[in-house]
Amino acid sequence: MNHTTFSYETLYNFCLKVFDAMGCSEEDARQATQTLLSADLRGIDSHGIARLIGYVRLWENGRINTKPRLRMVHETPSTALVDADAALGLIAAPRAMEIAIQKASQVGSGWVAVRNSNHFGIAGYHAMKALAHDMIGLAMTNASPLVAPTFAKERMLGTNPIAIAIPAKNEPPFVADFATTTAANGKLEILQRKQLPMPEGWAQDKEGNSTTNPYAVKEGGALLPLGSDKEHGSHKGYCLGAMVDILSGVLSGAGFGPWTPPFVSFLPLPQNPPGIGLGHFLGAIRIDGFQPIEQFKKNMDLWIRRFRNAQPIHPSQPVLIPGDPERLSEIERKQHGIPLLPPVIEDLQTIAKKFHIHQESLFN
Amino acid sequence: MNHTTFSYETLYNFCLKVFDAMGCSEEDARQATQTLLSADLRGIDSHGIARLIGYVRLWENGRINTKPRLRMVHETPSTALVDADAALGLIAAPRAMEIAIQKASQVGSGWVAVRNSNHFGIAGYHAMKALAHDMIGLAMTNASPLVAPTFAKERMLGTNPIAIAIPAKNEPPFVADFATTTAANGKLEILQRKQLPMPEGWAQDKEGNSTTNPYAVKEGGALLPLGSDKEHGSHKGYCLGAMVDILSGVLSGAGFGPWTPPFVSFLPLPQNPPGIGLGHFLGAIRIDGFQPIEQFKKNMDLWIRRFRNAQPIHPSQPVLIPGDPERLSEIERKQHGIPLLPPVIEDLQTIAKKFHIHQESLFN
Repeated sequence: MNHTTFSYETLYNFCLKVFDAMGCSEEDARQATQTLLSADLRGIDSHGIARLIGYVRLWENGRINTKPRLRMVHETPSTALVDADAALGLIAAPRAMEIAIQKASQVGSGWVAVRNSNHFGIAGYHAMKALAHDMIGLAMTNASPLVAPTFAKERMLGTNPIAIAIPAKNEPPFVADFATTTAANGKLEILQRKQLPMPEGWAQDKEGNSTTNPYAVKEGGALLPLGSDKEHGSHKGYCLGAMVDILSGVLSGAGFGPWTPPFVSFLPLPQNPPGIGLGHFLGAIRIDGFQPIEQFKKNMDLWIRRFRNAQPIHPSQPVLIPGDPERLSEIERKQHGIPLLPPVIEDLQTIAKKFHIHQESLFN
Repeated sequence: MNHTTFSYETLYNFCLKVFDAMGCSEEDARQATQTLLSADLRGIDSHGIARLIGYVRLWENGRINTKPRLRMVHETPSTALVDADAALGLIAAPRAMEIAIQKASQVGSGWVAVRNSNHFGIAGYHAMKALAHDMIGLAMTNASPLVAPTFAKERMLGTNPIAIAIPAKNEPPFVADFATTTAANGKLEILQRKQLPMPEGWAQDKEGNSTTNPYAVKEGGALLPLGSDKEHGSHKGYCLGAMVDILSGVLSGAGFGPWTPPFVSFLPLPQNPPGIGLGHFLGAIRIDGFQPIEQFKKNMDLWIRRFRNAQPIHPSQPVLIPGDPERLSEIERKQHGIPLLPPVIEDLQTIAKKFHIHQESLFN
């Protein structure tokens, strides 16, 4: 499909108007826009403006509160539990991350669990907030159940991402941000559009059989934990997804496992959930809580250079540092714009019509 | 190969004598023995008494100090850096974990990086220390470089395990403990002994090609990060291994990446390492830093039961909770003994002779 390219500023102004129309304060609308579009800039198209219509529908269904009063439920010097009051995760997570950073600057580390939230965009955006403070940032969230644990045919976990951001000196920061599944659902959608088979090991059908049908998950199957099958360590991917679910969901008092609320508004909410909404877990670790910052950063530069220069299998494909592809995408897209596919543009037009936003703001 | 079974007490007394003969204090010998044998009890045979001879050889080479003075290099209320003075990791890690737990009881969480250490046995043992304090425990360590990052043919990372232990109420705790590779090196050794081919995706040859030769790593190849290849998410396994290396190695001031000291004493130490010895990263999170303990534990019971009862693919293979196999092994082996293979027993006889330990202590 042919894409059309839009400048970051155009999409920024459009999103701002949408969040404003949904009732967000100016500050919240700015934050939500920034968080959402960081995905588009970093090349993670599945989590960016393509999801704007999903947020709008959740808001229409009364599942998102655009006038939230975030509340500190409990805290210690290095930990906190925040109730997000059904806010957009796009704004709840940055606020929680600020608390984590503040606690870290006071006592060396800060850890904030968030309940009663919604989808928070890309995990990497939140983790990276720590970088400017010479801290290591961590972010994770639970998500709509789509993943079967090893040996199960039932969907019990979300793609439950983990992000960690670590500053360096002259090198760009190390930023890992990945779903704890073998492949993201967005990759299946690409194959559906291209009418291509799916590699084995990405998903199973509803009976739990291996399949190459890219519609398998839509037809009641499940995504597979990182590792794909037991022989290749899927139990480890299951452990990772479970860890994210417990820290984000159980520890915060949010929904967890199969009770995690689905992102898509057409699916019913789980009955009798043991907690409220979606959950996140965010952390900040002060580097000089361990050693002098300059020494650490110098060694991070060394780490990054040594790994970047590891002997490649093919000279044409050098070894990458986590965050490299996203950083290059960000440079490219800030300069040349963000490409959107026709169905995404149609969704934006639907939203524009719904909120009476002049389409010129998007198409001039 | 036929194994011979020994009681836990027999192996305990033997190890105690060995660590005593190496010069450990009585307290340290007990701790080292307990840490080491926790692997045998939990069924992780590759990390238990089978490695005793490896520790002995490192000590003979002057790489292990059995009269260490562990030193707090730097601390904040929730973080600490410990220099282990070339101690056995088997004793350094439990001491560091105690510090993490103490800090957590004071300010909600505690995080300790350890440098100048050695191999610490199984990560799960250390993480589980937190359980008795109603805390979540985390443990990770870097290790001998054996793993190639995605796109590399060079060995840059260890199998770099991550463990997390989470308490429940009436259910046994959730204990995940896994290498960040597709398969552990010990699994390759089993196939070598059985003269069987290796599944694809476990290791690559020294040119970086996919292989089923179980000797591939011995012949200069490398283990693969969890995910096996790019198409199946090996870049995520690489991110995880790298995260463990940076938190354990760079943040602590230990060796890292290809400069991590090898476990086997016959390999030379890396030249001009940027840090000292091996590194660990240990953490404890107080549950009531977030919510009342009883409420959390009740929900953990619910989590565990719901996952255990997830619809299985095959009714004969129910879904497992992380830690289930190890817990069952521990019950079984405490009662019926620990099976050892002939080459392991030969190694123990070599050690017995070296230290003039009466072999009856092992074979009566």
